[in-house]
Amino acid sequence: MKILKKDKVTSFKRSVDAGTEEQRAAVKSIIADVKQRGDEAIRHYTEKFDGIHLDSLKVDKDEIKQAYNQIDADLVTILKEAAENIRDFHAKQKSTSWFDTQADGTILGQKITPIDAAGVYVPGGTAAYPSSVFMNVIPAQVAGVERIAMMTPPGPNGEVPAGVLVAADILGIDEIYKVGGAQAVAGLAYGTETISPVDKIVGPGNVFVALAKREVFGDVAIDMIAGPSEIAVLADESAEAQQVAADLLSQAEHDARSSSVLVTTSGTLAEAVHSAVEQQLQTLPREEIARKSIEDYGAIIVCDTMNEAEDVINLIAPEHLEVVTGSPFEQLAKIKHAGAIFLGKYSSEPIGDYFAGPNHVLPTNGTARFSSPLNVDDFVKKSSVISYSQQAWEQNHKKIARFARLEGLEAHARAVEARKENK
Amino acid sequence: MKILKKDKVTSFKRSVDAGTEEQRAAVKSIIADVKQRGDEAIRHYTEKFDGIHLDSLKVDKDEIKQAYNQIDADLVTILKEAAENIRDFHAKQKSTSWFDTQADGTILGQKITPIDAAGVYVPGGTAAYPSSVFMNVIPAQVAGVERIAMMTPPGPNGEVPAGVLVAADILGIDEIYKVGGAQAVAGLAYGTETISPVDKIVGPGNVFVALAKREVFGDVAIDMIAGPSEIAVLADESAEAQQVAADLLSQAEHDARSSSVLVTTSGTLAEAVHSAVEQQLQTLPREEIARKSIEDYGAIIVCDTMNEAEDVINLIAPEHLEVVTGSPFEQLAKIKHAGAIFLGKYSSEPIGDYFAGPNHVLPTNGTARFSSPLNVDDFVKKSSVISYSQQAWEQNHKKIARFARLEGLEAHARAVEARKENK
Repeated sequence: MKILKKDKVTSFKRSVDAGTEEQRAAVKSIIADVKQRGDEAIRHYTEKFDGIHLDSLKVDKDEIKQAYNQIDADLVTILKEAAENIRDFHAKQKSTSWFDTQADGTILGQKITPIDAAGVYVPGGTAAYPSSVFMNVIPAQVAGVERIAMMTPPGPNGEVPAGVLVAADILGIDEIYKVGGAQAVAGLAYGTETISPVDKIVGPGNVFVALAKREVFGDVAIDMIAGPSEIAVLADESAEAQQVAADLLSQAEHDARSSSVLVTTSGTLAEAVHSAVEQQLQTLPREEIARKSIEDYGAIIVCDTMNEAEDVINLIAPEHLEVVTGSPFEQLAKIKHAGAIFLGKYSSEPIGDYFAGPNHVLPTNGTARFSSPLNVDDFVKKSSVISYSQQAWEQNHKKIARFARLEGLEAHARAVEARKENK
Repeated sequence: MKILKKDKVTSFKRSVDAGTEEQRAAVKSIIADVKQRGDEAIRHYTEKFDGIHLDSLKVDKDEIKQAYNQIDADLVTILKEAAENIRDFHAKQKSTSWFDTQADGTILGQKITPIDAAGVYVPGGTAAYPSSVFMNVIPAQVAGVERIAMMTPPGPNGEVPAGVLVAADILGIDEIYKVGGAQAVAGLAYGTETISPVDKIVGPGNVFVALAKREVFGDVAIDMIAGPSEIAVLADESAEAQQVAADLLSQAEHDARSSSVLVTTSGTLAEAVHSAVEQQLQTLPREEIARKSIEDYGAIIVCDTMNEAEDVINLIAPEHLEVVTGSPFEQLAKIKHAGAIFLGKYSSEPIGDYFAGPNHVLPTNGTARFSSPLNVDDFVKKSSVISYSQQAWEQNHKKIARFARLEGLEAHARAVEARKENK
């Protein structure tokens, strides 16, 4: 792990997998095929890529029931409590329609309506996370989305991980298809004989899923193109080196391309974290991944002042930010760009991954400059409402017609003027 | 204009210009060139496509001052009043940060921060609209965006339309570049010697602008890929045929691919609107465009009941919807998908284009199913805030560690547990 002075830091570019030309072409052709052949194409690619022949694309009720046999009962209780915390937090995000009445009788407003149907992609393999199910489904449910369909690739025996099925069942989701990759995204976007199309597709996935989401964007809405996990820790001399090191490694273990950065005003802490990371690495089950991540994308940046350190954080615009300083709320005001901000020494990042309530689907690779955590607003849309009164029309129609004529749009002007004949 | 019974209506697909393979390739190469050669590339393409050699890319203060000589003083007053109405409406959209404190001392919240910089594309030629300037800039200003840069292609003499400059000046915008097309989008996304990069690009444009926005999406945020204008009018026998016809034509004059649809429960109104459209077409300055639009994408759909008519509207998910019925607020509850909803006989659509206050940048081609009008939230982003208390940690850390281990993420579990050593 490199220790750098702030003036040695020129760029915070992280690793992004934009896909190769071949991968893009493959994704385009899969999408075109699913559009044309529907279920037949879905079955074909599931056999080709997952090595599974599916009689039924849909998970049946028995599979869900049996999943509970593989999960400890007290773990189910923990999952339920986590789901409740996540639901409570997201309930506070809910926007409401509003109207404003004016003295002349005009009413202007904004109507909020949930989208009709959402599709949630849940990755397979080692990344099959019940927490992903919660974080993607609950905001949609809170928004009032009526239909939520889930897609996840079948494992080697055609099964879906028990944790994913139990998580879905806790939320009352039973429309689950054993379909992964670009074919899953295409099925959700355009529909097949079995799968009705949705309006928005959310959830993380591999490069094929990401490319497919980019491809269908516009025909349906998508959440974001997520990159590898990131953590930045902003710390002063009050931080405990072992804790900071453990938190850095919690992201490093996700992916060899994950990024873990400590920004600190304390040279002593920098040295101590450097040693602690090396020491903790040696006993980690996912040591190999975490070590590669720390070597390639890990850094410790030492700044002269806290102001300077805050600037560095805003430059990084990290997915996760921990503020471990004497008075972390003082830093909060200065932080402009970060997906989730964890304040104080008890707010270890994994608390937010699973349990506290806020969403763990967060903007990566500096996109916190312009993107938000997944939230309830992502599953609703607004409609403007305009009810112009006769008095408002009388007062303003000539101005509006002049404005329209300035833009050379005569039919616009005439439409407004046509109200003269109203009885 | 076709008159159809509802059961004859099978699809509402509108015209979308997705661009040809050649156009896509051209856009990619322009973007790559601007990334590499900066201003030099911008100058090159401006000479190539606009036929103008630019000494300075930026509009200077004198040009703005002189623009006022070309616009009547009372028109400037109208523009200012429109800007004020638009600002008033958008001010009501502003979201605020919130925090929630829990009994155990935990604080959870959501912090709202404006993006640092936005780029606004304003199309040139006949589509150079002062109203576009207002509708794209004002929400960003209300959101608190510090820097707003505007791009617009130079006209035949290297000038920018006076109306656009005056509109920008009314809003206090003076960072305006005479650059259009894909090169403008690339300049905003990646920056050049003269142009600092922005975080989000908004505003309508031709197919090259749309393709370029799609290409840079992810590196920066974009608003949406807008299609041709659309209007749907939901009317019963109480509507005036001449007014409905005039409103349908107000959108038809925009573009030969615009779509204008009347959905009505009244066969009498259907016939009367059909005649009125033909009669009004004959005296329109933009008759040719409007006639082509009405012929190709115009329709009158007659339904047996208002319920049926409302369903048709939700199926269309129109950009603009007018409800011209006896009691239009009754229909409002049933409308799920529409960009802007105009209620009652005085709410002619152009009132919303220019003056009432709500935004005229609206989702087209059925994307109102999942997209919203351009609004203040488009220029801010959220950060989750988590401040976990010692008590909350003590109560929950074992559960969180178990959840992490269920997902096979040992370093996550250890990070949460590492707080044991806190003093």
